[in-house]
Amino acid sequence: MRPDLSGVDPLAFNLATRLSVGDMLTRSAFQFPDRTAIVQDGEEITYARLDAAAEAFGRGMLETGLERQEPVAFLLGNSWRFVATFFGCAKSALVALPVNLMLPPDEVAWILADAGVRAVVADPAFVPLLEQILPDLPQVTTVVVTGDTSDSVAGRTALRWDDVAADPTPLQVVVEDRDTLHCLYTSGTTARPKGVLTSHLAVHVAALSSALQVGHRHGHEFSVAPIVLPLFHTTALDTLLLPVLLTGGTAILPPGFQPEAYLDIVEGSRATHLLLLPMMWAAVLATPRLDERDLSSVRLCMYAMAPMPQERIGQIAAAFPNADVLLGSGQTECVPATVLQWPAHQDTKSASWGPSVVTVDTRMMGPGGDLLPRGETGEIVYRGPHVMSGYWNNPEANTAAFAHAWFHSGDIGHLDEEGVVWFSDRLKDIVKTGGENVSSVEVERVLLSSPEITEVAVIGVPDDRWGEAVTAVVVAVDPAVDPSALSNRLTALCRKQLAGFQVPKGIEVLTGLPKTATGKIQKHELRERFRG
Amino acid sequence: MRPDLSGVDPLAFNLATRLSVGDMLTRSAFQFPDRTAIVQDGEEITYARLDAAAEAFGRGMLETGLERQEPVAFLLGNSWRFVATFFGCAKSALVALPVNLMLPPDEVAWILADAGVRAVVADPAFVPLLEQILPDLPQVTTVVVTGDTSDSVAGRTALRWDDVAADPTPLQVVVEDRDTLHCLYTSGTTARPKGVLTSHLAVHVAALSSALQVGHRHGHEFSVAPIVLPLFHTTALDTLLLPVLLTGGTAILPPGFQPEAYLDIVEGSRATHLLLLPMMWAAVLATPRLDERDLSSVRLCMYAMAPMPQERIGQIAAAFPNADVLLGSGQTECVPATVLQWPAHQDTKSASWGPSVVTVDTRMMGPGGDLLPRGETGEIVYRGPHVMSGYWNNPEANTAAFAHAWFHSGDIGHLDEEGVVWFSDRLKDIVKTGGENVSSVEVERVLLSSPEITEVAVIGVPDDRWGEAVTAVVVAVDPAVDPSALSNRLTALCRKQLAGFQVPKGIEVLTGLPKTATGKIQKHELRERFRG
Repeated sequence: MRPDLSGVDPLAFNLATRLSVGDMLTRSAFQFPDRTAIVQDGEEITYARLDAAAEAFGRGMLETGLERQEPVAFLLGNSWRFVATFFGCAKSALVALPVNLMLPPDEVAWILADAGVRAVVADPAFVPLLEQILPDLPQVTTVVVTGDTSDSVAGRTALRWDDVAADPTPLQVVVEDRDTLHCLYTSGTTARPKGVLTSHLAVHVAALSSALQVGHRHGHEFSVAPIVLPLFHTTALDTLLLPVLLTGGTAILPPGFQPEAYLDIVEGSRATHLLLLPMMWAAVLATPRLDERDLSSVRLCMYAMAPMPQERIGQIAAAFPNADVLLGSGQTECVPATVLQWPAHQDTKSASWGPSVVTVDTRMMGPGGDLLPRGETGEIVYRGPHVMSGYWNNPEANTAAFAHAWFHSGDIGHLDEEGVVWFSDRLKDIVKTGGENVSSVEVERVLLSSPEITEVAVIGVPDDRWGEAVTAVVVAVDPAVDPSALSNRLTALCRKQLAGFQVPKGIEVLTGLPKTATGKIQKHELRERFRG
Repeated sequence: MRPDLSGVDPLAFNLATRLSVGDMLTRSAFQFPDRTAIVQDGEEITYARLDAAAEAFGRGMLETGLERQEPVAFLLGNSWRFVATFFGCAKSALVALPVNLMLPPDEVAWILADAGVRAVVADPAFVPLLEQILPDLPQVTTVVVTGDTSDSVAGRTALRWDDVAADPTPLQVVVEDRDTLHCLYTSGTTARPKGVLTSHLAVHVAALSSALQVGHRHGHEFSVAPIVLPLFHTTALDTLLLPVLLTGGTAILPPGFQPEAYLDIVEGSRATHLLLLPMMWAAVLATPRLDERDLSSVRLCMYAMAPMPQERIGQIAAAFPNADVLLGSGQTECVPATVLQWPAHQDTKSASWGPSVVTVDTRMMGPGGDLLPRGETGEIVYRGPHVMSGYWNNPEANTAAFAHAWFHSGDIGHLDEEGVVWFSDRLKDIVKTGGENVSSVEVERVLLSSPEITEVAVIGVPDDRWGEAVTAVVVAVDPAVDPSALSNRLTALCRKQLAGFQVPKGIEVLTGLPKTATGKIQKHELRERFRG
């Protein structure tokens, strides 16, 4: 049964019925025009102002000649203009392509070329980077700068952001549910970054789901969230910022993360929802006179990327007396939070990832594509509207990603009897040795319990006898330590706590580990280095 | 930017990424297989059993030869098999068409013919109705009966529901976001009923939005909701049942509404979310020894369809000490709750409809299609993913419904400074008299304050002098009252409280008012009767 819409204007029908992320801001701005959406450098940007700026910016970008669904690359730090640029793209059916600001210039250039970017929006701080890379990127014709700028950048006319966002006439653009909202390039631990395309539907549903799971309430109390993680990542953008703006709350964008300044903001703004990385939580706990602060407003302390020791979770719970402490997990290809701990698991299952959110299925898959029963270890696979539309310009990766009708995460884990996901390792980081599978994460956990080392990576090195030999690469606390003696002590530690086949056959001591721009250890470089 | 999915199987991609209402149950059944989804006649149906039955029933219906997106008409009372039939249709991309059980046979027959229904699922109680209407509906070839049945109904082989739902092999059917999920015929206060087609996307997003607004929590506490309103209406189905099942809660389906039995269920099940009509709340408040009951588990007392006096709201709040009391509004064409009071408005704005939910825009439109500023009265229009896909088989109605790029509700109201919607009347119930617009609802409110009458309808009657003459039709408490004297007393009452042009020019006393099957007063019949 389909309705006969022959007499209905398609644009009118789209405007009246669509699910678009741009409308999320339109709605909050109509309901709460004078409430503060964003606080930056002490300035309060209201919903009405943010929405008007976003709409005008989107209109301005279309007027530069961009077609709908073309990418707009951002080189923008966390700021209200980042948010307005993002919503401007959403409202005009352009694709937001926020670039990871920690990438080296050649990788930024590679991404701009791969995505066929014609328009770039940059903070003044990134103009020198553009001067460096644009000469080799002739297709980039539009450069917009958020602050003062000279008239041209690398030979292109430079537009001021405020001038682009000058025309307040409302936008009327068709935005389809499955139009691409953003393209986020994943950092490459193994290969060139891949452009992950995500739809309006995926991000809007994930924002509703996150708001429901973490308790943002519409019209009851309003959430306040300081955001120090970069908005160019899906975690801060889709999982924290958007649910806050969906429900009329306030996002505070500090210039960076400094633990005491952060706590001053939390206290002063009566913040409700916090999201930090584990090492940031450690820094927060180490601040002086923490127990003298009034942190009673905080209802949720989230962390992401990695588990935290139970002891630290307990310390956070003590410092924030009204807050739950939860791990949120996910990946760029499946808008997080995909899997989120429940408060009931704060103490009992803090090392788990928690159960799926309401809009996601999570299962474990065997190598042949069979779904495994609870308790068995396999690749973590996802289904649901959070899942990406596909990788840009990479049909082979898409074929692999959607094999057997589930999205393949590349992570290994199992489900327990409660349907709680326990992560064990990245698929490619499993070491296959003498017919056994060794989880590098498990060995790393034992090694990290030694007070003598600060960092560790366990890899498999090709070996005639074992297939792969379990090999640990460590960074010592004391740079002057005798590597051979340290290696012997660590081997002894592993013998006590691990099965024989899990004990590293070799332990290498380095002064540092190779990392991506986002701080992930590049095991593929280590494998290359210790091959043979 | 669109991904190249040339190597991806379309069914695999759909299964991995779709937003479908059937998957809502799949997910809850995987996460909470042994939790109770439905309680009926003391029997507890687990999520695992409900999901398996739904999937098997969907498969069985496809095997009768139905094509995807064909309608399946239900003549089913509230029961777990209603829920399984509904999800079976959702999972197999069939269109659920639950028929209003209060309609007369000729209207049921008209709907089945209009929708081109080939398959009907009925409770044994409705087999006599089918025997009566099927002889004139040759296209109906499949009849499924939920209980014991003879081998044939009106010459068709009758299938037993449990036999149709016998094959447990999992379904693998493409379900698109905008496929039609259900077709609900609106009761006709003015004309023949219209089939409202609503998509999976609309209902799924509305369920997330409702869960967020009314505080169903996933993995915190679980909601328990007794449902006595009929599931063939969007209110009970989409706004109460689905958000409860989305979040792993329990729906209790009593055989009918009897106030003391209802309260026994609320108390015994530690119910959290209640939804009743205003007259049902009055009956609940009138039960003996209400104050001796433990009703502390209830967190929300919702009502729908009509406002309640402030006094009754206060009484409910007193009886349910931990509950907010809220009015939810909406209509079949825009999955409710579209507009929902906030707890902050329980006391201050209880006569309002409240603000839009997060996924809906609500505005007021003038006759020329212009959006009106706050404070001005016009037609209530909606935008957002809750809005229907269109009316079935009725292009003229669709053209009118989506005029000026907003969905036209046919209701009149205004928005206040807080964005709160205040309903004043149905557009067609405004009386135009002597150049003034009179809200029939406003006059009805004054008349109802008289203890002498139980019901009232105010209409406009064509009049040479006034254009329309404001006319009140009332039902007296005392059937032996002198109509002329009563009319004089009511006119005097109106003169005290209304402007002169609002005072009825005539007051008619009847013993009852004509109503639709759902209890709405049929003003068009009254207009016809008192014309001239």
